[in-house]
Amino acid sequence: MNEQSIWPRMTRRDLLAMIGTVAGSSLSYRAMAGIGLAPESTYRGPVKLEGSPGDASVLVLGAGLAGAVAALELRDAGYKVQVLEYNDRVGGRCWTLRGGDRYTELGGFAQNCRFDPGLYFNPGPWRIPYHHHAILDYCRRLGVALEPFIQVNYNALVHSERAFDAKPQRFRELRADFSGQVAELLAKAANQKALDAELSREDAEKLMEALREWGALDEQLRYVAGHASSERRGYAKPPGGGVAGAPEPSQPVSIKDILHSPLWRTLAVGEEINHQSAIFQPVGGMDMIARGFERRMGDLVRYGAKVTAIQQNETGVTVSYVDAHRGGAPQQARADYCLCTLPLTVLGQLDVQVSSPMKAAIRAVPYWAAAKVGLQFKRRFWEEDEHIYGGISYTDTPIRMISYPSTGYFSSGKGVLLGAYTFGLNAFEFTALAPEARIEAALQYGRRLHPQYDQEFDNGISVGWHRVPWTLGCAGAWTEELRAQHYETICRMDGRILLAGEHASYLPAWQEGAILSSLDAIVRLHHHVVNR
Amino acid sequence: MNEQSIWPRMTRRDLLAMIGTVAGSSLSYRAMAGIGLAPESTYRGPVKLEGSPGDASVLVLGAGLAGAVAALELRDAGYKVQVLEYNDRVGGRCWTLRGGDRYTELGGFAQNCRFDPGLYFNPGPWRIPYHHHAILDYCRRLGVALEPFIQVNYNALVHSERAFDAKPQRFRELRADFSGQVAELLAKAANQKALDAELSREDAEKLMEALREWGALDEQLRYVAGHASSERRGYAKPPGGGVAGAPEPSQPVSIKDILHSPLWRTLAVGEEINHQSAIFQPVGGMDMIARGFERRMGDLVRYGAKVTAIQQNETGVTVSYVDAHRGGAPQQARADYCLCTLPLTVLGQLDVQVSSPMKAAIRAVPYWAAAKVGLQFKRRFWEEDEHIYGGISYTDTPIRMISYPSTGYFSSGKGVLLGAYTFGLNAFEFTALAPEARIEAALQYGRRLHPQYDQEFDNGISVGWHRVPWTLGCAGAWTEELRAQHYETICRMDGRILLAGEHASYLPAWQEGAILSSLDAIVRLHHHVVNR
Repeated sequence: MNEQSIWPRMTRRDLLAMIGTVAGSSLSYRAMAGIGLAPESTYRGPVKLEGSPGDASVLVLGAGLAGAVAALELRDAGYKVQVLEYNDRVGGRCWTLRGGDRYTELGGFAQNCRFDPGLYFNPGPWRIPYHHHAILDYCRRLGVALEPFIQVNYNALVHSERAFDAKPQRFRELRADFSGQVAELLAKAANQKALDAELSREDAEKLMEALREWGALDEQLRYVAGHASSERRGYAKPPGGGVAGAPEPSQPVSIKDILHSPLWRTLAVGEEINHQSAIFQPVGGMDMIARGFERRMGDLVRYGAKVTAIQQNETGVTVSYVDAHRGGAPQQARADYCLCTLPLTVLGQLDVQVSSPMKAAIRAVPYWAAAKVGLQFKRRFWEEDEHIYGGISYTDTPIRMISYPSTGYFSSGKGVLLGAYTFGLNAFEFTALAPEARIEAALQYGRRLHPQYDQEFDNGISVGWHRVPWTLGCAGAWTEELRAQHYETICRMDGRILLAGEHASYLPAWQEGAILSSLDAIVRLHHHVVNR
Repeated sequence: MNEQSIWPRMTRRDLLAMIGTVAGSSLSYRAMAGIGLAPESTYRGPVKLEGSPGDASVLVLGAGLAGAVAALELRDAGYKVQVLEYNDRVGGRCWTLRGGDRYTELGGFAQNCRFDPGLYFNPGPWRIPYHHHAILDYCRRLGVALEPFIQVNYNALVHSERAFDAKPQRFRELRADFSGQVAELLAKAANQKALDAELSREDAEKLMEALREWGALDEQLRYVAGHASSERRGYAKPPGGGVAGAPEPSQPVSIKDILHSPLWRTLAVGEEINHQSAIFQPVGGMDMIARGFERRMGDLVRYGAKVTAIQQNETGVTVSYVDAHRGGAPQQARADYCLCTLPLTVLGQLDVQVSSPMKAAIRAVPYWAAAKVGLQFKRRFWEEDEHIYGGISYTDTPIRMISYPSTGYFSSGKGVLLGAYTFGLNAFEFTALAPEARIEAALQYGRRLHPQYDQEFDNGISVGWHRVPWTLGCAGAWTEELRAQHYETICRMDGRILLAGEHASYLPAWQEGAILSSLDAIVRLHHHVVNR
C-alpha cells in the first residue's frame, strides 16, 4: 500500500479543499476538451483522400503493411489497384510461424514448424507501443484484438558470462541497487555542497528528500540492507503471515560490482519510448494484423509474384514478374503509377527505371542483421519454477535475450519462448548456420540462464533475416550521414514511381514506420493525381 | 530497436565464443535444476496437513480469503468444518461490484450499481504481484484466469494543483527529466572528482559511462533537448514516415521545477516490490477468486450470520450469531476449535472470551481508512482521446489517483475507471459524505485531469471502508511499536481460538497476507490437534 505515502503532507490542505468542494464553492474548471498535451504521433486519424482520382490506376509492389495500407486506402478512394506479392500471404515481415508452417530460406534450408496448436512465434515485429497511433488505429479498424506485451519484468534475469560468476541476477535487484546507490552518491554530494554551483541550498535540500524516496534510501540517506531497499530489490526472507511472518532484509550488490559487469546496460531498456508501458501485441500472433488487412484487400493481390523489373514512361509503369514457385517467362502488369514497397535490398538487385539519384539512394542503405529463434518447451518452467511471467531476460551471450510469452500465463502444458533475438555480427553468424545449429546454439546459451532447457526442450525454428528471400535483411539501417544524403530522394516521387515502407521513415524496423510512410506516399500521390 | 545497443562492445568476443559453441567445444553447464536465486515468497506450495485429525471440528469465522482457505484445507485434511459469514457470499474484501448489485453501508446509505453488463469495479484488492505465490497458486488450483494489470503507464498523467499551473503532465516526461538530471548532476560531480572519496577514478569513469546510458545523457554528459532525451520523454514532433518524417526534440522540464512540485513523489511507485511488473488481476473482477473458493467450500458456509459472541472452555468453542438480515434471537454454533478471521475492528466490539493480552492486542490495532469510487463513462475517452491504456494517473487532490481499466483495451462503448482511491484524512472525509456527494467530489477533482468527465459521465458507486459493516476499515494499520507489543499475541493460539487474516501478517491489506496468515494458523492448529 505504498501508494498511500505518495502525498503525505497535504492531507490538511486537501481536507479543507474538499470541504470547499462539497459545500459547493467554485472550482476552476478546465475547458471541455482533451487536455491537449504534446502530440505523441504525427498520425491524425484515418487518411482522407478527397477528390476523384478519375480512372487512375496504381500498381502496388509488396503486400507488407505499407503495401496493404496503400492498396486498401487507394481502392477505397476510387483507384484501380493491383498488388504483386512474392509470398502467398499478406503481411511481409508482419509474420507469425505456427505448427504446420513450412519456411524455406535463401540457400534452400527448409524448416517445418512443429509447435503445438495455439502456440506461435513472431520472427519479425512483436510489439506495438502505445504511441504508434497509426497501427493501433488500423488494428481497431480491422478488428484485431490486442493484449499487453510485458516488456519489463522485474523478476526476469540479467546475465553475463563475465560478472557475478556467470550466475544470472534478478533484474529488480540490480535496478534497485544501481538507482539506490546513484541516489546515495548524489545525496552525499548535495550534502557536502558539491552541487552548490548547480543548485541553491533550498533546492539541494529538496533534492535530498526526493532522492531518499526515489532511491529507497534510509533516513540517513544511505542505500543499505533494510526495509527501504528490500521493498525494491526484494527480501532475504519475504514478509509472510502468522508467527514467523517478520521479513529479513536482503543485502544490496555494490555499485562497483554492477559497474564492473556489463549488466548496467540492461537497466533502462524499458524507459525507451518504444519500450515503455503500455505496449501491446495482437492476441494470437502478429500476423492477425496481416490477416485483418487480407480480409479487406486480399482480392487485389496476385500472390507468388516475384518482381524482376520496373519500367516507366510518360504514360505509365510496367512491372515484370515471374511466378515465385515455378519461374517461367516473365509476365507484365501495368498501371498509371507504381507504389513500390519492396525492401531496398531487393529493389537494388532489380532492373528499375528510376533517376540516378534514386538508384544511388536505393543502393546506399544497408540493412540491419537480425535473427530470432523460437523454442517450444514441454512446460512453462519459467513460470512454474522461476515465477517469470512475460518480459525479457538479457544476456551478453550471442542470443542477447530470452523473451517469455506475454500470453497464456499460468497455463499448464507447452509453451514457446523467444530463445534468441540477436543483432550485428552475432546475427550474421546465426544466419550463416544451418537451422539445427542455430537451435543448438540457442539452447547452449539459453541453458546458462535456465538449466531446465535440457530437460524441457521440445522443438524450435529460426529466422535469420538476411536469408529471408523477400527481404534479405531486417530493416533499413540509416545513419545520420545516409539520411542527409539519400532520405529525401528515397521519399521523392520519381516519375511515376513512389517508394514506401519502413525504409522510407524515421521509425525503421517498426510497423508504424511502414504505415506512416505509406500514408505519406499515398497522400502525395493522390495530390498529384487530382491536380494533374 | 534500442535493445540492439545494449551490448555494443562484445560482438567480436561473442562471435569467437559462438564459433566455439558450434564447433562443439565444451561449455560449462549449470546443474539441471532451477537457478536457485533468493526466494520471493515464504509460500512452499499447497499446504500438507499430514496425520489424521480424528473427529476434530473447527468453526471458521468469516469467509474472506483467510477463512475460505482454512475451510477448504481443513475439510480436505479431514476436519469437520463450519463457516459463519456475515455476507451472502464468500470473499470478504475480495469483492467486485457490477450492475444490479446493491450495497448498503453502515448508516443506512444504499447504493445500486448501474454499470453496464461486463463492466465492474473492485472496491477492495485489485492486483496480484508476481511474487505473491500463495494467491497465485490458489488461482491456479481454482481455475481463476489472470491477465496483466498495468500499474505503470508512461503515458498516464501526474497532476498537482500547486505545480505547472495545475496542468497535468505526462508521467514519462517527468520521469525521464528527473532521472536524466540526477544522472547529469552525478556525472558532473564524478567528473569534478567530488566522488573520489567514494569511488576510484576507474570506477568513476565507468559510472559516467553508465549514467550516460541510464539517464539518456548526450555525449557531453548533459541532459538536454535532443535525440537521447526525446527517446525517453517523447518528441515535440515524433519521428514519422515519408518526406516530413524527421523528428524534432522536446524541451525537458528543469529538475528545479520538478523538485518544487510534489510530483517527484509519483516517479518511483512502480519500483516498489508490490507494484513491479509483472502484476496481474483476475479476468472479470477480483471476486472471481472468491467464486473459485465458493465452488470448493461454499457448502460449508452459513451465510448472513452475524457473530455476536465467542466463548470457549476446556472442551470447545461456542459462537453466538444472529441473522444478519432479520436479527432475532442469537443461535449457537459449536466446535472443538475456532479459527477467527473477523477483522480486529469487528472482533474488538464483540464479547470474546480470550486472554487479557489477546483482548488488548485486538483493541490496539487501528485500521487504515480508504475509500474508492468507481465511475462509468459513456466512452473510453482516456484511450480514444489520450491514448492511456490501463495504468494510473496520480494527483495531489483528494482523489489521489485515477486508474484506467486493465482490460477491454481499444473497445468501443462504455468503460469503468477507478475515479478515486483515497487514504487517510481524505478517506475519512469521503466516507463521511453521502454516496452522491462522493461521486460529485470524484468528478470535480477528476475533471482537472480529464475535462471529458463533464460530457461523458454516466454513473458511479463508492465504498468508504470505515462504513463497510463487516470490516469497519480497510486493513490493519500496524506500526513497528504495535508489532513489538501485540503481533505475537495476535498470532498465538489462545486456548482453542486462533486468529488469522491480513491483520495477522506482515503483508497488511494484501490478499497474500490473509492467505499466508491462514496457512500458518491451520498448520499450527493441525500440529496441535494431531499431537493432542
